[in-house]
Amino acid sequence: MQTVMTVEEIREFLRVEFPQINALGEAFSVEEVSDGQAVMRLRVGKMHLRPGGTVSGPAMMTLADLAAYTAILAHVGPVALAVTTNLNINFLKKPAEGDLLATCSLLKLGKRLAVVECGIRSVGEDDLCAHATATYSLPPR
Amino acid sequence: MQTVMTVEEIREFLRVEFPQINALGEAFSVEEVSDGQAVMRLRVGKMHLRPGGTVSGPAMMTLADLAAYTAILAHVGPVALAVTTNLNINFLKKPAEGDLLATCSLLKLGKRLAVVECGIRSVGEDDLCAHATATYSLPPR
Amino acid sequence: MQTVMTVEEIREFLRVEFPQINALGEAFSVEEVSDGQAVMRLRVGKMHLRPGGTVSGPAMMTLADLAAYTAILAHVGPVALAVTTNLNINFLKKPAEGDLLATCSLLKLGKRLAVVECGIRSVGEDDLCAHATATYSLPPR
Amino acid sequence: MQTVMTVEEIREFLRVEFPQINALGEAFSVEEVSDGQAVMRLRVGKMHLRPGGTVSGPAMMTLADLAAYTAILAHVGPVALAVTTNLNINFLKKPAEGDLLATCSLLKLGKRLAVVECGIRSVGEDDLCAHATATYSLPPR
Repeated sequence: MQTVMTVEEIREFLRVEFPQINALGEAFSVEEVSDGQAVMRLRVGKMHLRPGGTVSGPAMMTLADLAAYTAILAHVGPVALAVTTNLNINFLKKPAEGDLLATCSLLKLGKRLAVVECGIRSVGEDDLCAHATATYSLPPR
Repeated sequence: MQTVMTVEEIREFLRVEFPQINALGEAFSVEEVSDGQAVMRLRVGKMHLRPGGTVSGPAMMTLADLAAYTAILAHVGPVALAVTTNLNINFLKKPAEGDLLATCSLLKLGKRLAVVECGIRSVGEDDLCAHATATYSLPPR
Repeated sequence: MQTVMTVEEIREFLRVEFPQINALGEAFSVEEVSDGQAVMRLRVGKMHLRPGGTVSGPAMMTLADLAAYTAILAHVGPVALAVTTNLNINFLKKPAEGDLLATCSLLKLGKRLAVVECGIRSVGEDDLCAHATATYSLPPR
Repeated sequence: MQTVMTVEEIREFLRVEFPQINALGEAFSVEEVSDGQAVMRLRVGKMHLRPGGTVSGPAMMTLADLAAYTAILAHVGPVALAVTTNLNINFLKKPAEGDLLATCSLLKLGKRLAVVECGIRSVGEDDLCAHATATYSLPPR
């Protein structure tokens, strides 16, 4: 599975099409795309925290969904509009303080459905904080 | 399964313990709790929208998680700290413009795990926009 | 959502098209279909049991998948071939000895995807033993 | 995460404790265990097939559950009794004719919960036929 967009092209696309994502500052940013994969960073800010300073579940779900969407975008191009149909996430351990990285792999890129796996880690750590799989419905191409 | 907190008590608890939830305005509010159930409203604002005016997936995931947490809180009380371990959501149709209601039912309230089902609808509509199930780990009580 | 097949027609269809299901005896049988719903019974036999006499997880997963498939069949008719794309199941409590009933509701019956919710109970009990949601890809109709 | 049982010990344990699994022939067999991982083979027989000769969804769900259970067993030992609490599976493509291999990785091995990821492939193929994540409740150790 080969990428058809660069990191810069994806950033520009998200900036134009999904201005709400980063309405409150550049929280989510694409870091890397390669064959079958994409990496997104969440710059953790106050709005993503729960009491005790841990990143909230919804912030990690948002990261997983956006990172998985980006992985598809990178391989399908900016025309197609993928819609999330299912997302399943397991929360595995409390993230450390600091930014999170979501590493996504395309499990399937079919005509109608794409399925993506996503592991979320604190920057610099090996252990997963959360693991998600998400399915997207693809428009006819 | 009987409730041990009123709507007012839950609102106060969330206000104190989770100020981040509504940092940007009173978006999420508990509407109703009854035996085995809870209803939460999302007052949809600009930050919850995607292009075309539809409510974003992450906004619905946040609503599902918070509403399910509230359903547990209402039956376990403010002492216990429940932690989401799994959330699975199916997106079924685009929400209409306007607020969303999440209606939650406790499927299980065990010693260690609680499982909640959550249906999300546009206010005044019968059809589901999304349907989630979520599992929470409960501390020893 | 109206049914287009009767219980008898569905039984005959499954008998002809899926002989493997009941290769070892009439374990799975459609009990009831009505608008948006279907009920299937698992006649629990030795092959469905785990040590201690409890019904195995895989037997409940098979029941959930088959019951959900049947709910779709009842509303789409015998021509269409639905394929499971996702199944999520929560196991809530050990079933009592004896048969299980799976009660399914169509959450969505779209052009391309159908989503079904399924509750599994021991016959005569109120509490759920398991709760599943499943998604099926539908062929063009 | 280090293994505490060998392949032979696991086979013997399953033979004694779960005779039903292979009541109809040696369909499921542990192939390999290593740190954090386990591989199980399904010797596909008639009972696992659907019309057209493809392996049924329930056969793959059974394989995923059993393989994930085995991965935990290998790291926790034969005393502990793990119980499946959640299983989520995405079906990605029709398996080729022939046996299936399930490759499992422990995502988390906590005090109370273990989470396992499982990829299912036809023997000799790279592409996934199915991908599952499963959660198990662990007894006090």
